[in-house]
Amino acid sequence: MNHFHHSKLKEFCESVFLEIGCPPNQAKLASQVLVSADLRGVDSHGVARLSGYIRLFDKKRINSTPNIRIVHESPSTATVNADGALGLVSAPWAMHLAISKAKIAGTGWVAVSNSNHFGIAGYHAMMALEHNMIGIAMTNASPLVAPTHSLSRMLGTNPMAFAIPAGKQPPFVADFATTTAANGKLEILQRKNLKAPEGWIQDQSGNSSDNPNELSLGGALLPLGSDREHGSHKGYCLGSVVDILSAVLSGANYGPWVPPFVAFLDPPSDPVGEGIGHFFGAMRIDAFRKAEDFLHHMDNWIDSFRNAKPIDVSQPIIIPGDPEREAEIERRASGIPLNPKVEDDLRELASNLGVKFPESI
Amino acid sequence: MNHFHHSKLKEFCESVFLEIGCPPNQAKLASQVLVSADLRGVDSHGVARLSGYIRLFDKKRINSTPNIRIVHESPSTATVNADGALGLVSAPWAMHLAISKAKIAGTGWVAVSNSNHFGIAGYHAMMALEHNMIGIAMTNASPLVAPTHSLSRMLGTNPMAFAIPAGKQPPFVADFATTTAANGKLEILQRKNLKAPEGWIQDQSGNSSDNPNELSLGGALLPLGSDREHGSHKGYCLGSVVDILSAVLSGANYGPWVPPFVAFLDPPSDPVGEGIGHFFGAMRIDAFRKAEDFLHHMDNWIDSFRNAKPIDVSQPIIIPGDPEREAEIERRASGIPLNPKVEDDLRELASNLGVKFPESI
Repeated sequence: MNHFHHSKLKEFCESVFLEIGCPPNQAKLASQVLVSADLRGVDSHGVARLSGYIRLFDKKRINSTPNIRIVHESPSTATVNADGALGLVSAPWAMHLAISKAKIAGTGWVAVSNSNHFGIAGYHAMMALEHNMIGIAMTNASPLVAPTHSLSRMLGTNPMAFAIPAGKQPPFVADFATTTAANGKLEILQRKNLKAPEGWIQDQSGNSSDNPNELSLGGALLPLGSDREHGSHKGYCLGSVVDILSAVLSGANYGPWVPPFVAFLDPPSDPVGEGIGHFFGAMRIDAFRKAEDFLHHMDNWIDSFRNAKPIDVSQPIIIPGDPEREAEIERRASGIPLNPKVEDDLRELASNLGVKFPESI
Repeated sequence: MNHFHHSKLKEFCESVFLEIGCPPNQAKLASQVLVSADLRGVDSHGVARLSGYIRLFDKKRINSTPNIRIVHESPSTATVNADGALGLVSAPWAMHLAISKAKIAGTGWVAVSNSNHFGIAGYHAMMALEHNMIGIAMTNASPLVAPTHSLSRMLGTNPMAFAIPAGKQPPFVADFATTTAANGKLEILQRKNLKAPEGWIQDQSGNSSDNPNELSLGGALLPLGSDREHGSHKGYCLGSVVDILSAVLSGANYGPWVPPFVAFLDPPSDPVGEGIGHFFGAMRIDAFRKAEDFLHHMDNWIDSFRNAKPIDVSQPIIIPGDPEREAEIERRASGIPLNPKVEDDLRELASNLGVKFPESI
């Protein structure tokens, strides 16, 4: 796999977004969010998705010059209509608003409608950290997940992210799909021609399946917990809460009406709202207690969990955010490895748009 | 099993709380919360716990005449020191405060320290419903759960509850432990001498165990997801977020320092905060969009999920809150069945305190 310097990939994405008509500040921001996923090792949400976004622009399902605006607000809340913007742009816009609200009201909560795929949830939640705030980000997504007892795909993988500042320790950053396995995990198995573990997927009759291609045959992803006996009703609850806060509260499409992220599938013809929805929160630490006391105890929390007794000494206890932070250190130094298929796809995009593709390291 | 009218059980609990010195309004409120768990079919959190609370009073670990007070606040937040109150009292107090804040600021968020077991989380979250608000309630609890890869019990079953109002439909009410199985489920298996399903518990060496008594042998409950392959790191994240919001933010004990709910185990001798912690939220619907639009779409959300295609027609899709609402209808009509062991325990408590135990139906 060829490796690319993150700043080169960022410049490349920026040229692409400029080429399709994004204003310079939005092109820069979207590229920043996209490449941060690659830096953090979340390859499924990084530059691998760039050509997917561009195909949605081509189909006029993403607006390159949106008028993102507040349509409703209170001291600690706002609802934003993203006007069909890239989620990579509307999400930081909304998170910034949540942070501004929190500065005055103690907390800020922003629901977003009429948006698109927002990339890596953790990026948006982490925007709160430098302000000594707890950040929360979630989004709904196109329906791939069957509720407990159901054959119907009613929910997306609906991720939630929480970023919590610490003092001397690095922050606690949890970012996860509310399903047993994220869709990106299936794509890896498909590429490698491997079977899926039991409990990730059901087939079109509702039986457990080990076929990572089952979704194209009418199957569904399973909520976190896998089956009723192992708590899938809890994963179904979590995915539902994300869907309701992101979309029923904002005026976006929810449940089975969420438009697909891929350009080759049309959105439902009977929408119940506009675009997809997100939900963001920012909570000022010192709206609850003295920030230095919180940061001190958060250090102690992290320290005690990191030093919990491992089952196997070679596999220590992980603090949420550790693996992504380690990936970022490594990839800032050695570059971002691109899967050859992804590199080919990006080279083709570059040539179609007349944009220069960067040299590898 | 004998059945008891809910109002008789409530009067009984009230007499007990009065007998140990609670002010009348607190005795009434605590009884209301306790019996609401029995009404909703959540037997593990109802009157079965009454004598456990009383034993903690006897040990001076619960304060019957607390001075519950705000120690820090902002327009949308507050931190409350519950002064060792019954959680059954401090939780509605704090949720009421969150609702008051939300009336003015759009949302209200209250972290509580120096509290005790708060009973059924759903009760507190549901307080928001009559105000056309979304309610959120969570609490930490004594450590029984091992993080992914660990032998150490670092987290409680740390439940979270979400109550979301609808229009013509009954509300969406999710209330669940962030573990694969709640501790109450193990107690049922212990009573019936049955084995536990794989994925609920690990033994003291970290191997999967089917022994429902494993916790007394040094084992641990597993986070939602059961093992790494099935997403236990996500359940570990959820339980951690509940712990941090409830306790690191409020100044309560967190992680392995959370005091046990049972009187025969002493609290850790090196506390990092006061008592156990809770976290509550209230979000006014019309701080985001017109309430009637939200309620209409929430009805549509519920309707579409309830009518999703079932795997087995005899097992329809459940909307969170359905089973508890059905239990409440049944038990309001036919009374609350008490397990004979629980009835004996309550009769003994009644006789010790010189309080009359009610007649069964």
